[in-house]
Amino acid sequence: DTPFDYSEHPHRRRNPLAGTWVLVSPHRAKRPWQGSQEDAPSDDRPEYDPNDYLGPGNSRVNGTVQNPDYKDTFVFDNDFQALLSDTPDGAVGNVDNDDLLVARAEKGKCRVLCFSPKLNVTVAEMSVPALRKVVDAWVDEYATLSKLDYIAHVQIFENKGSMMGCSNAHPHGQIWSSSWIPEAPLAELTNLAGYRSRKGTHMLEDYATLEEKSGERVVCGNTTFLAVVPFWAVWPFEVLVLSKKRIPSMDAFGDQEKDDLADIYRRVTCRYDNLFTTLFPYSMGIHQAPTDGSWQDVAHFHMHFYPPLLRSATVRKFMVGFELLAEAQRDLTAEQAAKRLRDCSEVHFNDAKK
Amino acid sequence: DTPFDYSEHPHRRRNPLAGTWVLVSPHRAKRPWQGSQEDAPSDDRPEYDPNDYLGPGNSRVNGTVQNPDYKDTFVFDNDFQALLSDTPDGAVGNVDNDDLLVARAEKGKCRVLCFSPKLNVTVAEMSVPALRKVVDAWVDEYATLSKLDYIAHVQIFENKGSMMGCSNAHPHGQIWSSSWIPEAPLAELTNLAGYRSRKGTHMLEDYATLEEKSGERVVCGNTTFLAVVPFWAVWPFEVLVLSKKRIPSMDAFGDQEKDDLADIYRRVTCRYDNLFTTLFPYSMGIHQAPTDGSWQDVAHFHMHFYPPLLRSATVRKFMVGFELLAEAQRDLTAEQAAKRLRDCSEVHFNDAKK
Ligand SMILES: O=P(O)(O)O[C@H]1O[C@H](CO)[C@@H](O)[C@H](O)[C@H]1O
Ligand SMILES: O=P(O)(O)O[C@H]1O[C@H](CO)[C@@H](O)[C@H](O)[C@H]1O
Repeated sequence: DTPFDYSEHPHRRRNPLAGTWVLVSPHRAKRPWQGSQEDAPSDDRPEYDPNDYLGPGNSRVNGTVQNPDYKDTFVFDNDFQALLSDTPDGAVGNVDNDDLLVARAEKGKCRVLCFSPKLNVTVAEMSVPALRKVVDAWVDEYATLSKLDYIAHVQIFENKGSMMGCSNAHPHGQIWSSSWIPEAPLAELTNLAGYRSRKGTHMLEDYATLEEKSGERVVCGNTTFLAVVPFWAVWPFEVLVLSKKRIPSMDAFGDQEKDDLADIYRRVTCRYDNLFTTLFPYSMGIHQAPTDGSWQDVAHFHMHFYPPLLRSATVRKFMVGFELLAEAQRDLTAEQAAKRLRDCSEVHFNDAKK
Repeated sequence: DTPFDYSEHPHRRRNPLAGTWVLVSPHRAKRPWQGSQEDAPSDDRPEYDPNDYLGPGNSRVNGTVQNPDYKDTFVFDNDFQALLSDTPDGAVGNVDNDDLLVARAEKGKCRVLCFSPKLNVTVAEMSVPALRKVVDAWVDEYATLSKLDYIAHVQIFENKGSMMGCSNAHPHGQIWSSSWIPEAPLAELTNLAGYRSRKGTHMLEDYATLEEKSGERVVCGNTTFLAVVPFWAVWPFEVLVLSKKRIPSMDAFGDQEKDDLADIYRRVTCRYDNLFTTLFPYSMGIHQAPTDGSWQDVAHFHMHFYPPLLRSATVRKFMVGFELLAEAQRDLTAEQAAKRLRDCSEVHFNDAKK
């Protein structure tokens, strides 16, 4: 009898960080695609556009505020914040009573961070010193927001590309800070603490060691960070960037860690762009210690990249049907995806052309 | 001071069925949209197309099989099944040891169900007697698959529209049966059982009673079923169709329940199409008792509709960034969405034109 082989046979893999599972169907990677094709993004971006509401000196989307003539990064309050600082306290129902209608008033502050004054660059095309300014802005925001008494958690993220709902091509990210710890980071912190209390070691330190030793799922790395396609990846080319040693949050970063984060952010996104010779769309998010002082002893700084493309600049994976109603599913294995990304250059295709 | 009002102030709502939360930002519903616009689907569908690999008498996608000249529904094994019946048993690692690499071989069978021989109809445009044949096919598949000793769960779903990754416009759904109970239904069953053991009543019976009484979130109903935008809806126009009295699975349906399911399936999807005068995309999935005999005493038949459109046929909600990395978020409240759907006609815009 053929023994079970996860590079060949359908199976589920478990994500010990999120506490979830994913169905992997390696035998299906070759099925023909007859479905929707996305438009490949055009690459005729000007460096400056007077209608770009994130551009230096330009009017913002609401028409009443003007951006300063900024030279590197620029941070401001989102003009349409999903959370507000002055929501009145209140609640409906009670979870502990098994009430069916349960709601709680929440507060927060949503910020926007422009990565560069130029409209025609992406993270993948920026220099490490320019990205270091982005990292510095993140560190600043994390520290400033954590001082607000109504903030418990700071979620830093980037939606890149119109396929990922990004409403402006100007290179930028967002920071949504909130009066509670949102579901995804809370689940991770809970699982990190459980592992720590049972094993005595830290889950993501053990995981980084295991992946460095095996090499099979490694994409790239530097002194501080390792980029892998995690064993339990859901998105076709999902990447996890984690610090090799546990660092609870950016608060604890020195110069080396900040430079290394800028370096790996560029290298991962550059490999992405080179994979299908396109401005590769993704959502990126940073998970680290909440800012209310909780979970400091187990939190472990890491970044998730969730990119939708599957086979080319125009064929994506859809998380629909079975995925929405039952369980995440993928065809390509994590090992195959890691190999593809490992084989990509760290020189951007746009620079290689020059 | 203004008291907290969930039609106005940012808040979180809890989903007692899934055990999750959603951030609701009602004040933000009016923000301008500058992002990606989808192409509106064209409506020049022929009734028959020789290249439609789901059409009667046509060759299938692999070129080797020919469909019969079917007259109503037609069910067959998916040509590219995500699960196979003959996967060798096996596993890597052990969850109970906190192993970091955990995988388990799994089996299953994936089926495709064509709803009609015609290419140019959708559920919303089909008659109740024609949809009754679809319901009959579901009941049949559920019963047949449950007899396979390696099947524990049957997931019936429909991906409609290319925006939902549907790779063929022919009206069809899928049935993925599996050797385990997938994550989403398992979480629901666990929460239904918890509620039952604490309260003595059934969660979804209590919920149907509450919603019928209030009326605020009701879309439509018939003798057996109620369609609501649930209090905890994540997708802008998400709908939950539930039986008013607990029925564990379709196995227990009589003629009345089958006709009533066909009726509400048509009425909900017809209202969807009329909302933005488009063939409204969605993923629909049925949750009911697993087929391995477990959870029979708490399972409660229901259907989820997860549609992405937000403001028009071309502007959708993206579940990206904050949603993927932190927590689900919506602008419009469930109550506003329910009112919009309640105000829609149950005569399809294509029929109204005739
Ligand atoms: O089977 P199809 O229609 O080719 O594929 C579609 O539905 C599947 C099940 O929800 C998903 O896994 C795919 O991502 C989606 O494109
Ligand atoms: O804030 P933006 O860029 O307009 O909006 C985008 O990011 C948000 C945060 O992830 C999402 O809620 C929106 O669905 C998405 O379109």
